[in-house]
Amino acid sequence: MYSVTVRDHMMIAHSFRGEMFGPAQRLHGATYLVDATFRRNTLDANNVVVDIGRAGEALRAVVGELNYRNLDDVSALVGVNTTMEALAALIADRLADLVQAGAFGEAARELTGIAVTLHESHVAWATYERAL
Amino acid sequence: MYSVTVRDHMMIAHSFRGEMFGPAQRLHGATYLVDATFRRNTLDANNVVVDIGRAGEALRAVVGELNYRNLDDVSALVGVNTTMEALAALIADRLADLVQAGAFGEAARELTGIAVTLHESHVAWATYERAL
Amino acid sequence: MYSVTVRDHMMIAHSFRGEMFGPAQRLHGATYLVDATFRRNTLDANNVVVDIGRAGEALRAVVGELNYRNLDDVSALVGVNTTMEALAALIADRLADLVQAGAFGEAARELTGIAVTLHESHVAWATYERAL
Amino acid sequence: MYSVTVRDHMMIAHSFRGEMFGPAQRLHGATYLVDATFRRNTLDANNVVVDIGRAGEALRAVVGELNYRNLDDVSALVGVNTTMEALAALIADRLADLVQAGAFGEAARELTGIAVTLHESHVAWATYERAL
Amino acid sequence: MYSVTVRDHMMIAHSFRGEMFGPAQRLHGATYLVDATFRRNTLDANNVVVDIGRAGEALRAVVGELNYRNLDDVSALVGVNTTMEALAALIADRLADLVQAGAFGEAARELTGIAVTLHESHVAWATYERAL
Amino acid sequence: MYSVTVRDHMMIAHSFRGEMFGPAQRLHGATYLVDATFRRNTLDANNVVVDIGRAGEALRAVVGELNYRNLDDVSALVGVNTTMEALAALIADRLADLVQAGAFGEAARELTGIAVTLHESHVAWATYERAL
Repeated sequence: MYSVTVRDHMMIAHSFRGEMFGPAQRLHGATYLVDATFRRNTLDANNVVVDIGRAGEALRAVVGELNYRNLDDVSALVGVNTTMEALAALIADRLADLVQAGAFGEAARELTGIAVTLHESHVAWATYERAL
Repeated sequence: MYSVTVRDHMMIAHSFRGEMFGPAQRLHGATYLVDATFRRNTLDANNVVVDIGRAGEALRAVVGELNYRNLDDVSALVGVNTTMEALAALIADRLADLVQAGAFGEAARELTGIAVTLHESHVAWATYERAL
Repeated sequence: MYSVTVRDHMMIAHSFRGEMFGPAQRLHGATYLVDATFRRNTLDANNVVVDIGRAGEALRAVVGELNYRNLDDVSALVGVNTTMEALAALIADRLADLVQAGAFGEAARELTGIAVTLHESHVAWATYERAL
Repeated sequence: MYSVTVRDHMMIAHSFRGEMFGPAQRLHGATYLVDATFRRNTLDANNVVVDIGRAGEALRAVVGELNYRNLDDVSALVGVNTTMEALAALIADRLADLVQAGAFGEAARELTGIAVTLHESHVAWATYERAL
Repeated sequence: MYSVTVRDHMMIAHSFRGEMFGPAQRLHGATYLVDATFRRNTLDANNVVVDIGRAGEALRAVVGELNYRNLDDVSALVGVNTTMEALAALIADRLADLVQAGAFGEAARELTGIAVTLHESHVAWATYERAL
Repeated sequence: MYSVTVRDHMMIAHSFRGEMFGPAQRLHGATYLVDATFRRNTLDANNVVVDIGRAGEALRAVVGELNYRNLDDVSALVGVNTTMEALAALIADRLADLVQAGAFGEAARELTGIAVTLHESHVAWATYERAL
């Protein structure tokens, strides 16, 4: 089994709802390093899992929609606790949509899965994995 | 599938028994970066795998029992080769006990697995994974 | 010349004023890794630059005043562009005050300088250095 | 399930064939950090997955065959696009051969899998995993 | 004293001349992480050392001239041993030219120095520092 | 001004004397990442600060004298608090001796300084710098 991963990052503000979050219920922010992993059982004719250039551009586009924003004000996220876990799933699902729409080329339709990891610091990160 | 990981570290002395270990049979030591990963199929009502604050405290407590010790003198470890692999399993099992005792809250009972990685340097690390 | 560095981090929201900042004029946020370096020409009687435990606690206290906050709402920072550079200087000055107030012990009065580095991501960081 | 990973690196020149690769069709090069992971269900009598010293030596030997070379001139690789994915598989297969030839000792015959990750930069990496 | 650093990378082929270089006399390659640091005694009216966006673009442009190339074939480098040290100086000088040509804006004319670090791997790097 | 840095590591046991050290007065241990930096005003005829191969071997030799040891039992260190600061100075002085004994070649006699950094974890490190 093969995989390829590309890294980008975003810098956002947000707040959490729920006593569990303690001081993170206040408006604060984060730099998220975002790692997107694409999985496949065999390589394509070019010997790659996916065109790494296209993968990087797709990740940049998806991350760019959230970058430099206050997530509390993003209409699609109203009422959502934008935890690392939830954002990882949101980004993985958006990348899956792009794969299925052909944005990574025809060969990429043989991808079997996507995983997205968000690192909020050097001591905490979260991952969401899904099939394609 | 979702996971969340928190990192802590500990600084211990120990020695190994067995010719295979060469100079590491002598009393020496290590800083272990310790990454604890918690897995779950769906998120809880707060959109998290686990309360990351509690996870960090639990890891700190478990690691704290070994920190600044000579593992050769820890009674529970007498006669045990305290390799990265063995320590990763020991820490994962202790965290699993805490989850099952309710230390992470009721929602955490839906965790499906734990993985612990110990890094002994920038060039070597080991992982133990288990179900919950 | 000797130095010792300890690392902590904080997660804040803020916005910048000035066209130069482009999309960062919007409310967004950052995780800052914060490295505080203490310099000294010779070691003290314990063979250290500074008690690393106290240094870590002091850094945690200073960083804790900003952590999980929207810096646009912190009264001491009203009208200030809270760039990495400006925050590094603010944290270094607060640490210098603590050293001079004796919070690091008497021996720490022989410290000759402090440097603070903030990392906003894996690809950008800033440093402020000052004498003591 | 247990695993142990060792890291080494190599510095090679190569070029890619295929329009998809854009400017990487030109002769260029890379430093690859190479992480080799060995998996096993239980530990051996020494409490290890594999003798980490032997694992490091085996990885160094395999990587050493490619290090400081222009891969376009390596006869075994003629006509092969030497992507991270393809090189990860090549290295994993060579390590598997060594395990099966007994180079890691008798106990290592209980290894269940190998994974190799190549990092071409701080923002891109690829992995190949196989059973043993 | 203040500084700001931005990181980019490049992937090149090259060879060295001189017995000292051993196997690195063969055509091989490297990924260089390139960190460019800009120094200044005081901050400008925006509270920055330099517009970090412009700094990143300038570094990308300078690195882009070498990226995906065989340095042995770059006419400006004929007969030059393109060591980390030499490339760091070359990149720092190119950035200094851009500063002096006004590419970073008028305020950047108060920069006092530039340092460039190239990392060829996780275990070796080199720096060149110069005044402005 | 130029510099080149090479990284190695060592795994040692030790204890500290002095109330300030708290639980670190117990026998414990550390993995130290050890970075040795060599400084020089101009490059030599090969365009290097120092033969990086020789630098790496020298660092390995110096670190190797301490690796896999209990520093409390090393006769040269009896009664010494083997802090990061003290060990950095000890290693820098040993490297300086080797430079002056010609172990890095004749050209290396133009080195102007050495700095050694020890990292005891991902959140603490210390540096000693000296002239040559």
